[in-house]
Amino acid sequence: MMNKSAPIGVFDSGVGGLTVVREIMRQIPNEKIVYFGDTARVPYGSKSKETVTRYSRQIVRFLQTQEVKAIVVACNTASAYALDEIEKETDIPMIGVVKPGARVAAETTSNGKIGVIATEGTVNSHIYSRYIKEIKADANVVGKACPLFVPLVEEGLLQDPVTDEIAKRYLTELIDIGIDTLILGCTHYPLLRSTVGKIMGEGVTLVNPAYETARELKELLDREELLNEEEPKLGDNKYRFYVSDGAEKFKRFANSIIKYGILSAKIINIEEY
Amino acid sequence: MMNKSAPIGVFDSGVGGLTVVREIMRQIPNEKIVYFGDTARVPYGSKSKETVTRYSRQIVRFLQTQEVKAIVVACNTASAYALDEIEKETDIPMIGVVKPGARVAAETTSNGKIGVIATEGTVNSHIYSRYIKEIKADANVVGKACPLFVPLVEEGLLQDPVTDEIAKRYLTELIDIGIDTLILGCTHYPLLRSTVGKIMGEGVTLVNPAYETARELKELLDREELLNEEEPKLGDNKYRFYVSDGAEKFKRFANSIIKYGILSAKIINIEEY
Repeated sequence: MMNKSAPIGVFDSGVGGLTVVREIMRQIPNEKIVYFGDTARVPYGSKSKETVTRYSRQIVRFLQTQEVKAIVVACNTASAYALDEIEKETDIPMIGVVKPGARVAAETTSNGKIGVIATEGTVNSHIYSRYIKEIKADANVVGKACPLFVPLVEEGLLQDPVTDEIAKRYLTELIDIGIDTLILGCTHYPLLRSTVGKIMGEGVTLVNPAYETARELKELLDREELLNEEEPKLGDNKYRFYVSDGAEKFKRFANSIIKYGILSAKIINIEEY
Repeated sequence: MMNKSAPIGVFDSGVGGLTVVREIMRQIPNEKIVYFGDTARVPYGSKSKETVTRYSRQIVRFLQTQEVKAIVVACNTASAYALDEIEKETDIPMIGVVKPGARVAAETTSNGKIGVIATEGTVNSHIYSRYIKEIKADANVVGKACPLFVPLVEEGLLQDPVTDEIAKRYLTELIDIGIDTLILGCTHYPLLRSTVGKIMGEGVTLVNPAYETARELKELLDREELLNEEEPKLGDNKYRFYVSDGAEKFKRFANSIIKYGILSAKIINIEEY
């Protein structure tokens, strides 16, 4: 029997998952959150399925020590590669960011042409296509890996001519195909929303899976009778942040994404889990 | 007593160290090489000293199982952060890329103004400055972190307007200071030599530590009477490559750097060492 007042565990390869945390904070503000960012082994997007699955399994073990009542895989690559396997290994309800994003994209498109920008790993897994076709069998889903987007975001070049130029190169083929819906299939990418939106133009709807994930998480907790009914008390350590490296740098970046004011992030040795 | 015909161990966070391997192949062609690229945990440049040291220690343990007669730390960040500590923990002679690069820069400069472009970790360690000042106490050493260079190289944008633009931004302050010598302080950067050279102009000498490292390795092996006197036989597995992830991708990239023709790279789980 899970405890309603237990925290939700959220993990990502680094800082990108904080765009999901931000949505959870907005939509279900009573919930406590334990976040883990694997900053020592970031990025996941260029790694193999085996490696990403091994890393994800270690993180789930860590989150179990934090007695979480649910786990959000707030990383597209881990959702694509590892979720199916790791959710079988525990009783804790688990959701990823891919399914919610796929669902809303399938519901949004008019012409059936959907683009997915993501890491190499997520694109190669074809997972968005698989989930979208479960809902809309005749959809035409085109993936495009954008390996420079994460480093550009981490370098702070959110609005910059260089980012514009790189984005144009990545997005041209999606424009040529005539997609009407574009999934921001990596948790860093919502931070490039205005750049991507400008290039794609008004006719293309951008889907941010973070928003949908928070909404589905709320439904899941409600269904399992796990929603926290009371606001956590002050001093109750509502939000806790763990990383595998570089706590100070994480804190700076995190505070630029979520307005909550992260006072500290703790380093743990994730390889021990 | 070490065996002369034993291989040399070379390691890096990923593929960059192959620029060092290339020089070793050229300068001491009789030597066998075992290369390890930590492609599962790349990059090291943005990670902490503790993490890079832990990773380096695991790799040294792996290379010991390969019975290497010497170890080359072909990664500037690992040389900067971990070498002092890990070389005390074994009897195997070990050299990094920083000291050789620092020495030649100190000998090259006329006006005493030396620039170092490198990862965040290497720059923050101030290690080039420390070694240069041991030789030339009045040198003025200015470090500049270039975090986008590694992703740009790995994306194959070696000669590209975007790389030019980013390089100009990074290098402007070094040009303004009037340096006459620039150390390419990350093993990926020799691949951007022509871009960097064009921006810095003819008055600035570019120092590639890989070349000097191979030269010093040869001297070290000679001094320790460890030079291999005979060419390895065909079928003797002269060059062996190991990675922690993505063997196929590594092979493709490796073959673009060294002309030897890498037929295979083996994956090992480095966390077990």
